[in-house]
Amino acid sequence: MAEIKEECGVFGIYDLDGNDVTASIYYGLTSLQHRGQEACGLAVSDTKGPIGNVKFHKDLGLVSEVLREETLHKMSGDIGIGHVRYSTTGASVAENAQPLVLSYVKGSLALAHNGNLVNTKALKWELIQSGAVFHTTTDSEVIAFHVARERVHTSCVEDAVLNTAKKLQGAYGLVIMSPRKLIGVRDPYGLKPLCLGKRDNAYVLASESCALTSVGAEFIRDILPGEMITISHEGIKSDLTLANLVKTRAHCVFEYIYFARLDSTLDKVSVYDARIRGGKSLAKSYPVEADLVTGVPESGIPAAKGFSEESGIPFGFAFYKNSYIGRTFIKPTQKERESSVHLKLSVLEAAVKGKRIVLVDDSIVRGTTIANLIRMLKEAGALEVHVRISSPPFLHPCYFGTDVPSNDQLIAAQHSTEEICKMIGADSLGYMEIEYLEGMAGGLPICKACFDGNYPMEIPNENNLQNDFEIHKI
Amino acid sequence: MAEIKEECGVFGIYDLDGNDVTASIYYGLTSLQHRGQEACGLAVSDTKGPIGNVKFHKDLGLVSEVLREETLHKMSGDIGIGHVRYSTTGASVAENAQPLVLSYVKGSLALAHNGNLVNTKALKWELIQSGAVFHTTTDSEVIAFHVARERVHTSCVEDAVLNTAKKLQGAYGLVIMSPRKLIGVRDPYGLKPLCLGKRDNAYVLASESCALTSVGAEFIRDILPGEMITISHEGIKSDLTLANLVKTRAHCVFEYIYFARLDSTLDKVSVYDARIRGGKSLAKSYPVEADLVTGVPESGIPAAKGFSEESGIPFGFAFYKNSYIGRTFIKPTQKERESSVHLKLSVLEAAVKGKRIVLVDDSIVRGTTIANLIRMLKEAGALEVHVRISSPPFLHPCYFGTDVPSNDQLIAAQHSTEEICKMIGADSLGYMEIEYLEGMAGGLPICKACFDGNYPMEIPNENNLQNDFEIHKI
Amino acid sequence: MAEIKEECGVFGIYDLDGNDVTASIYYGLTSLQHRGQEACGLAVSDTKGPIGNVKFHKDLGLVSEVLREETLHKMSGDIGIGHVRYSTTGASVAENAQPLVLSYVKGSLALAHNGNLVNTKALKWELIQSGAVFHTTTDSEVIAFHVARERVHTSCVEDAVLNTAKKLQGAYGLVIMSPRKLIGVRDPYGLKPLCLGKRDNAYVLASESCALTSVGAEFIRDILPGEMITISHEGIKSDLTLANLVKTRAHCVFEYIYFARLDSTLDKVSVYDARIRGGKSLAKSYPVEADLVTGVPESGIPAAKGFSEESGIPFGFAFYKNSYIGRTFIKPTQKERESSVHLKLSVLEAAVKGKRIVLVDDSIVRGTTIANLIRMLKEAGALEVHVRISSPPFLHPCYFGTDVPSNDQLIAAQHSTEEICKMIGADSLGYMEIEYLEGMAGGLPICKACFDGNYPMEIPNENNLQNDFEIHKI
Amino acid sequence: MAEIKEECGVFGIYDLDGNDVTASIYYGLTSLQHRGQEACGLAVSDTKGPIGNVKFHKDLGLVSEVLREETLHKMSGDIGIGHVRYSTTGASVAENAQPLVLSYVKGSLALAHNGNLVNTKALKWELIQSGAVFHTTTDSEVIAFHVARERVHTSCVEDAVLNTAKKLQGAYGLVIMSPRKLIGVRDPYGLKPLCLGKRDNAYVLASESCALTSVGAEFIRDILPGEMITISHEGIKSDLTLANLVKTRAHCVFEYIYFARLDSTLDKVSVYDARIRGGKSLAKSYPVEADLVTGVPESGIPAAKGFSEESGIPFGFAFYKNSYIGRTFIKPTQKERESSVHLKLSVLEAAVKGKRIVLVDDSIVRGTTIANLIRMLKEAGALEVHVRISSPPFLHPCYFGTDVPSNDQLIAAQHSTEEICKMIGADSLGYMEIEYLEGMAGGLPICKACFDGNYPMEIPNENNLQNDFEIHKI
Repeated sequence: MAEIKEECGVFGIYDLDGNDVTASIYYGLTSLQHRGQEACGLAVSDTKGPIGNVKFHKDLGLVSEVLREETLHKMSGDIGIGHVRYSTTGASVAENAQPLVLSYVKGSLALAHNGNLVNTKALKWELIQSGAVFHTTTDSEVIAFHVARERVHTSCVEDAVLNTAKKLQGAYGLVIMSPRKLIGVRDPYGLKPLCLGKRDNAYVLASESCALTSVGAEFIRDILPGEMITISHEGIKSDLTLANLVKTRAHCVFEYIYFARLDSTLDKVSVYDARIRGGKSLAKSYPVEADLVTGVPESGIPAAKGFSEESGIPFGFAFYKNSYIGRTFIKPTQKERESSVHLKLSVLEAAVKGKRIVLVDDSIVRGTTIANLIRMLKEAGALEVHVRISSPPFLHPCYFGTDVPSNDQLIAAQHSTEEICKMIGADSLGYMEIEYLEGMAGGLPICKACFDGNYPMEIPNENNLQNDFEIHKI
Repeated sequence: MAEIKEECGVFGIYDLDGNDVTASIYYGLTSLQHRGQEACGLAVSDTKGPIGNVKFHKDLGLVSEVLREETLHKMSGDIGIGHVRYSTTGASVAENAQPLVLSYVKGSLALAHNGNLVNTKALKWELIQSGAVFHTTTDSEVIAFHVARERVHTSCVEDAVLNTAKKLQGAYGLVIMSPRKLIGVRDPYGLKPLCLGKRDNAYVLASESCALTSVGAEFIRDILPGEMITISHEGIKSDLTLANLVKTRAHCVFEYIYFARLDSTLDKVSVYDARIRGGKSLAKSYPVEADLVTGVPESGIPAAKGFSEESGIPFGFAFYKNSYIGRTFIKPTQKERESSVHLKLSVLEAAVKGKRIVLVDDSIVRGTTIANLIRMLKEAGALEVHVRISSPPFLHPCYFGTDVPSNDQLIAAQHSTEEICKMIGADSLGYMEIEYLEGMAGGLPICKACFDGNYPMEIPNENNLQNDFEIHKI
Repeated sequence: MAEIKEECGVFGIYDLDGNDVTASIYYGLTSLQHRGQEACGLAVSDTKGPIGNVKFHKDLGLVSEVLREETLHKMSGDIGIGHVRYSTTGASVAENAQPLVLSYVKGSLALAHNGNLVNTKALKWELIQSGAVFHTTTDSEVIAFHVARERVHTSCVEDAVLNTAKKLQGAYGLVIMSPRKLIGVRDPYGLKPLCLGKRDNAYVLASESCALTSVGAEFIRDILPGEMITISHEGIKSDLTLANLVKTRAHCVFEYIYFARLDSTLDKVSVYDARIRGGKSLAKSYPVEADLVTGVPESGIPAAKGFSEESGIPFGFAFYKNSYIGRTFIKPTQKERESSVHLKLSVLEAAVKGKRIVLVDDSIVRGTTIANLIRMLKEAGALEVHVRISSPPFLHPCYFGTDVPSNDQLIAAQHSTEEICKMIGADSLGYMEIEYLEGMAGGLPICKACFDGNYPMEIPNENNLQNDFEIHKI
Repeated sequence: MAEIKEECGVFGIYDLDGNDVTASIYYGLTSLQHRGQEACGLAVSDTKGPIGNVKFHKDLGLVSEVLREETLHKMSGDIGIGHVRYSTTGASVAENAQPLVLSYVKGSLALAHNGNLVNTKALKWELIQSGAVFHTTTDSEVIAFHVARERVHTSCVEDAVLNTAKKLQGAYGLVIMSPRKLIGVRDPYGLKPLCLGKRDNAYVLASESCALTSVGAEFIRDILPGEMITISHEGIKSDLTLANLVKTRAHCVFEYIYFARLDSTLDKVSVYDARIRGGKSLAKSYPVEADLVTGVPESGIPAAKGFSEESGIPFGFAFYKNSYIGRTFIKPTQKERESSVHLKLSVLEAAVKGKRIVLVDDSIVRGTTIANLIRMLKEAGALEVHVRISSPPFLHPCYFGTDVPSNDQLIAAQHSTEEICKMIGADSLGYMEIEYLEGMAGGLPICKACFDGNYPMEIPNENNLQNDFEIHKI
């Protein structure tokens, strides 16, 4: 029941045999929907047609809401990119949906971006000071504009993208469609994931491997941190210039804790295995006698399974989740509020009555949800409820695209673990110990700044640059 | 992944303290949504206002789609009923949505019906022959019309309902709102469930106990088969006339196998417990050596847990289910079809590789889905896949409101278990043995006619009565 | 700029050669749209198909809004009826839209009604007392129900309609579609118009002759007051039973003053000619020296032309009408209100400056609009404004379907002509003299009760019958 | 019944007392709707708030469809601009709707443009070659971008606009909103109209004077050809630099023939008077004996009135126009086509029977419509139909924003007047003589290039510049 939001997922595909890729983008975005439910879009082009001919559609809403059959039927092409979005920068408005599609000196340019830059304002300042105009408040428009500027004096679009990427500070997984090339770039820290797949003679770029599976593509490899990859009829080219400029690697650990889909493998580490390991480490750190290990649906369940495997305590269910409570669900008023969790999750009384329970979740933000669940379990006859959290307490802001609530909303920033345990009504409480994180992530170099405050790069102060004017389409 | 459809759920509430019940009906219907996703509606009245003043709304769609905030804000009342529908009789059109709201001699009459009558045409014939007109093709309009006819010469609405119920043959759970009374009736066989709850001074009727929980009401008791219950400012009255006219009891066993929500308790039998027992009986009947017991999400999971408990083989996950594949999802074309199951369910390769797996589901209809899942498991490295089904094979039609596909679509009607096992690519296959059904259902008298052809009542042949004309609103 | 509302228009067509009539109903309703802009609908059936197969669509809104191409494409048939509605009885809700389509003992029955009965409650009381249920609060459902009752013991549907019509008191132009017959009935007073046309082998019934023209049909004749006409494969049958029961004829004079379309001819009297005569009679009764005769757009223009012809004063324009001010137009707030008429009508300053003007309109209700127009003309430089109204002052309610405002809203009910002239700022004011009405209507016997209070029939007091319960779909 | 399309109307307002101007823009656009029905929009800002804060809304559709109450309620400001559009350049897509709202170095910039440039591609080429990106294919984005570039090195926004305007070749009426200034510019030829009004302490710019009236503003004066006017808290500033650079004046004569609203006065010439003069000149050039002069609704009516005044033949009506035939009207199929004109216009038989008729229209494009009308008149009994057209024949393309059909669709480009007369079935035909145009337009210097091919400026050939890539939002 994580309340931490990821911002985006990207997808790109180029079918060198010339087949239409529209449906594949649709399926790819559907499988990346967990990375962003606020807006989505896709752009396709026919590389056999005239230069710069692109059709696109994007709007606020889920993939199934925005990309309807009647819309997709009007689009076709052998190259295309797509995007799902949860906004951290840029207002939640339709114009800020991606991909961004523009015309520039060489035809059309489409761009989709996962991540967050820390020097956006400076990059924008440079442009606006020389007479540029902006239609949106997104990082993506700033990046695309720099690419267009570079393209005036570079001999190919890859060079323009590379020159631009050298200026970008922050986290990014980018897919870019030029009239005849599909380009993917990953920030040199490897903060955001990006991988490559192949289906027949079509190449696919995606934020997660699950999106490859969904279109029947075979996983080839992860794009390396700092790698730019260019797919065209000349084949696949890899450029590691950026990778050599920055030596630090720092994969976002929260992908393994919560963001990525359970069936994905990122940077050779299976997300499922990572979460099982997370649960096992909790069992080692905080063993307890109990009759049932259960997880808060859905996010706590894999770690609960890991806890069960390590502890030998049977894994099972304690809650029924009503899957019909969608985004348009009318929230109960204050008076009815306390039964609100009941609507989404209800206790399986027959499963919990008379039992000592280990309840696993991926994180605690405000603590109100877990407190309600504990109360519900006890009202249904649970004898004890021991809470285990498969991540350390959040204590620091994320500048790279994860929407961690501010400190005053984070219970862990205000209270000790003992206090929290008491506040939520648990019989015991254990957070994953920070030193287990690398192990959980299969030994990868990770960014865990939200837990320990050690950021992999310096974060510039851009407060003096005022260039994000409030232009809102109503 | 059951493909068998239930037709309806009903909800009624009367707050004798005069508080608005609109939101409660909304939450109640949300918790009954699994019983019908085609249409829904609600009707409310203010018993303190003028006689016969009712506001209602209903349409095709999910509760969250049809009952929007702006609509509910225009409605209020201390008494009301609601309905969710999957149609078996009556075309899938907006007019056939329920509740049915009418004016009659004593003011307004609202009615919501779960179940299917077997003598509808005769009941309609009687009316239409005496000059009646019909706006819909639903059982509900026929029932309401008979109630109105009876009401002309009875001294109270309960008597009119009772006289009408005496004529009804088939399965029904009815809630009826007259200007000052809320009435619930359950067919004497007990084919359809109905229960009573209480929250402060408000009484609640609902198809399942989970709907009581969702509105913070306490479960009082099941309405008895053949019981009519009347809630008014004079208190609660029970009438058992119907119960005494028919002695047979025959609760629909499929409520326990699949229809009812996992957290409900129907006729004192916990659905969760029943499904665990179902899984255990499979383990007893068809033991097998394996490394992992898993269920087809969502319907096979509880029985898989039961199989695990009985067999000692660890329970775990094999699939990730994409919850964003909604009703508007664009189906792949024939060419892309084979990856279709991949989109909804993908295999957790890390969880299944190198394992011998027991795969549990609640039923097999065509066999294509389970065949795909088995193939996916094996492609991901599963060594063996043993299929266990927590119900016997379907062989007979249901006349009481369950939408069992016709024989030519039922693999079990055409092939032996051995043949099916081979066709779906399983290493072994076992269906629940029919003699375990009573035990699974906690010893209740059950209707299991869809498995054995023994119907609890005679089914009249109404083919000679042509009175369902095709009137369709486009 | 009349503010008096007519309630309905009806259309029916039966193509005996079996061609689809859906588009014709659409065009017919479009040409009758001036008779009702609140709701509309149509129903079609294929008489070559199974008995009682009807498709219909209806909703709140204009013909162009409700009957969209995608809807009409799903409908086809060789017989059908349609309706446009402005409600006087029955709430303004979608359920009350017409045609009403029902199933009854002989299949389906569709009915569309123009007019208002004065004994609806008694007719409904008779039915509801014997156990009937009602879904709407329209006259039409009551009429249809009586037809269904009669049909049980009559040998054909015409007899059932005739027996029903004998009970109806009030104004009606009815079109009824039974499985194999199209029936039209006109009240014996002739209060509401109805006419017959023919196109190839298709017969058409319509409220006005303009609807015949719009579908390329030739006008045959008006349906006589009290005539029932039946169109079927046996040919056209006329029945004059009703016409013989009631001897009084009383055609609604307001059809000629305002309701009917300028290009229609009703009961052999051209509406255009009638309005020209109206204007001429004003010129005779209230001559004045002036430079320009103009009408308030649109309703005052034909009478202005007549005034010009009689007086010899040139006819011309004084106002520009903005045709883009639709129903969704956002009304100015109180503060901006005074410029509100400017938005819809603006003065052609070049046409009116320095002129003495005769301003003709069809009626005055509150007087505020005409006062604003006079002020606008004078501000634009008009020297004098002489107002001429082509109807007498409204003083009495209409019980037959015309929505005359209540007395406290009628300026003529509260003030003398001299007072009104001063209040609206006119230099002189003349209303048509009541004795000219018959002449204007070409010598027809007319109902002019709204002017003189002489109703053609007794109006029963039904206040003691409470059977219109408030059931509202939200 | 003109089939020639104008492209746009603009509106701007700045209330120096700080009152909200949103509703005024809405009313102003409603009164300019005749200039463009394809798309519309508005942008407002509060000059008392932070720099660059703008809210806007725009979309395809009529003002009443796009600017709904719920949308306008979310907007407020003391400065704002609006636009109605019929597209000649830029695809008919929502992104191309105006106003264009951007952020640039000094905050926000909003721009609305009426007219068409002839050097757009060169202006865009200059930008795109230096690295610019474009989101739309409109002239407006190119203009705004140049303003932003200029603003980097000018001391005020007026100078940036002026420097930009010096580069623009073609027709334009521009309104521009910067954070604290409202600017209007009119091309030096005066091809497109623009005028200034005042209401209390609010200044208004609009394409036509009728828009001033609609918001209760007093007409002050026309903006001069080549004038830039700046409204701010420092008062009103006028700059005539452009007016001095170009000496030719050439007001579009088609504004007087058809585009402008009948109640507008442009460049001191009343549109009503001009059309009356046009009709009079026809009567002088082509006198005829007849009984009735009538116009094709709506566009032919004022000239018909002028013809009547000159000839002494009475003016009157021949057609009824159905005002309910909106944009969603379903067109008849080929088979039903011939009755299509009947639906929109029907003949008033009583008015035309036995008469010799002069039928006036503003132009003939294909000739099919007028041919149908002549046939309808004759079928209704007209003895003779003499056609008079209040403009010369179209023979040349317009490069300034008027959408004249191509030559192969223009009957006048293919046939002599005698041939056309015969083809349309008229008894005589007369087009306005070209030498009367100046007189009709009150002696103004006019552009009549569409009639005589004499363009007021050189039209550059931009075919070699390929920079309008096909980027379409689906």
